[in-house]
Amino acid sequence: MKPVPEWSMRAWMDERLTRVEHALQEWVGVDEPEHLDVVLGLAMRYAVLDGGKRLRPLLVLAACEAVRGEADAALRAACATELIHAYSLVHDDMPCMDNDVLRRGKPTVHVQFGEAQALLAGDALQALAFELLTPDDEVAVPVGMQARLCRLLARAAGSSGMAGGQAIDLASVGVKLDEERLRQMHRLKTGALLQASVMMGAACGHPTQAQQAALSDYGAAIGLAFQVVDDILDVTADSATLGKTAGKDAVQDKPTYVSLLGLARAQAHARELHAQALAALARLRNLSPNQSSELDQTRALRALADLVVERAH
Amino acid sequence: MKPVPEWSMRAWMDERLTRVEHALQEWVGVDEPEHLDVVLGLAMRYAVLDGGKRLRPLLVLAACEAVRGEADAALRAACATELIHAYSLVHDDMPCMDNDVLRRGKPTVHVQFGEAQALLAGDALQALAFELLTPDDEVAVPVGMQARLCRLLARAAGSSGMAGGQAIDLASVGVKLDEERLRQMHRLKTGALLQASVMMGAACGHPTQAQQAALSDYGAAIGLAFQVVDDILDVTADSATLGKTAGKDAVQDKPTYVSLLGLARAQAHARELHAQALAALARLRNLSPNQSSELDQTRALRALADLVVERAH
Repeated sequence: MKPVPEWSMRAWMDERLTRVEHALQEWVGVDEPEHLDVVLGLAMRYAVLDGGKRLRPLLVLAACEAVRGEADAALRAACATELIHAYSLVHDDMPCMDNDVLRRGKPTVHVQFGEAQALLAGDALQALAFELLTPDDEVAVPVGMQARLCRLLARAAGSSGMAGGQAIDLASVGVKLDEERLRQMHRLKTGALLQASVMMGAACGHPTQAQQAALSDYGAAIGLAFQVVDDILDVTADSATLGKTAGKDAVQDKPTYVSLLGLARAQAHARELHAQALAALARLRNLSPNQSSELDQTRALRALADLVVERAH
Repeated sequence: MKPVPEWSMRAWMDERLTRVEHALQEWVGVDEPEHLDVVLGLAMRYAVLDGGKRLRPLLVLAACEAVRGEADAALRAACATELIHAYSLVHDDMPCMDNDVLRRGKPTVHVQFGEAQALLAGDALQALAFELLTPDDEVAVPVGMQARLCRLLARAAGSSGMAGGQAIDLASVGVKLDEERLRQMHRLKTGALLQASVMMGAACGHPTQAQQAALSDYGAAIGLAFQVVDDILDVTADSATLGKTAGKDAVQDKPTYVSLLGLARAQAHARELHAQALAALARLRNLSPNQSSELDQTRALRALADLVVERAH
């Protein structure tokens, strides 16, 4: 398959990242004046702004474009997925969880603002995600779309998704997991929200069942690939590159794809998942009445799959 | 105003409480089999089941009946408000917050399951609240109702509601607040969710603007009354009666209505708010074409206002 010209993807990403950053700046931690004397809003902004790859928002926007969905709804959905991701990092980093002091090269939220404010900021960020998905303006985002976006996000975040995966992770330190169990843990912990990001972007349009199935397969493949690459980077990259403490998994004796499969097979597995994601996109294009234009529509999703597997951090 | 016969309210409450308990038993912490080896679901159930006055669910159901709304939607909304309340207690009790070991006469969730599981259980309970409000069955609960229920709950839970009030509370220990500031803190910390419970019950029907305004005033009055009575009970009741540690406010030097107004004026303020709530219900009845039947429809809301002010714990 002919690779996407770098310049075009770069331009596509820069434009979307700018929109997402502006939207987050406008929507996160901007409380009523009466709140300004408390640091909650500051902690929320610190946790969300000027950091992160924004992979989930980019997946939402790319999936929305693949089904020619509504851009306004997609921007809200994009920010909502990032808020859920950001809140999970704030809580994960707390002393009672991973007890991490460095995140994206900055002190973690609880180090900067204290544990209590970090706990509240994470809680408020989760609520804000659903606030963004349910604007009063039901013309800009129809209620049916609002409801389905909330449905997808709530299930991806909760006990059958991210929180459930974190609980399995918590119970797995020092425990020997087989590959199936490890896959299941990651499918929930990181895969559910990544896949939901794709499906939320799709929910901003009106895809057919077959298109949804192809996008779901794409989301599942890159969701798992992301974690496999994460495990690989934990042993191959240094903290400065990662922007977080490298080698933690081994130190904490956490099961990873590298500890389970070895580095070489883990890397092969990542390539295999990448191929599955591209195959799903090929199916999506074949489902379209107008392939040449659909090729264009799925280009960003394809480039994001490349980015997930080829990223250095 | 002639008081509601005790027997009728008792029967009304018992029937609703049974429905709510059965629904919570069915919906909370029931993960897929693959999750059963982690304690997340157990911690979620421990935090929610067999405890609490269920005031928020009762307000939802009573408000729904006052506007002749949909019972199925109201039951989901009722449970969702309780899940948000329960998660806030789990996180509030953690060592980095109030560090409380006793709740409803039982060890708090972090004492029973550890801090990490308590943190995750609270996070998962918040997500579950929005899962309950967005069922796949769009006939049982129309998407417009799903979206508006999520909108009300998200705003009541977030930085402009409960979480925002907790942040002000956190910043207010040892700080002298005037009554206006104290009212504002409680309006967010506990009032927002209580008022939202009333408005969510109303959103299960199709109330007029005027009916919504009356219900909003009712919700605001009992929301504040609840906190004033809470402050009173903290100094007048014992831990056994409260099911939690009494006298904590004074020990932690937290501003309360009693510390600010003194016990007698705090009690007078509670009675005044109770009268405001009843006045709002009188307006609601006058808005109805058929007053005699509306009298019946608002009876439960009136009895709940009595219960909030006259409760012993």
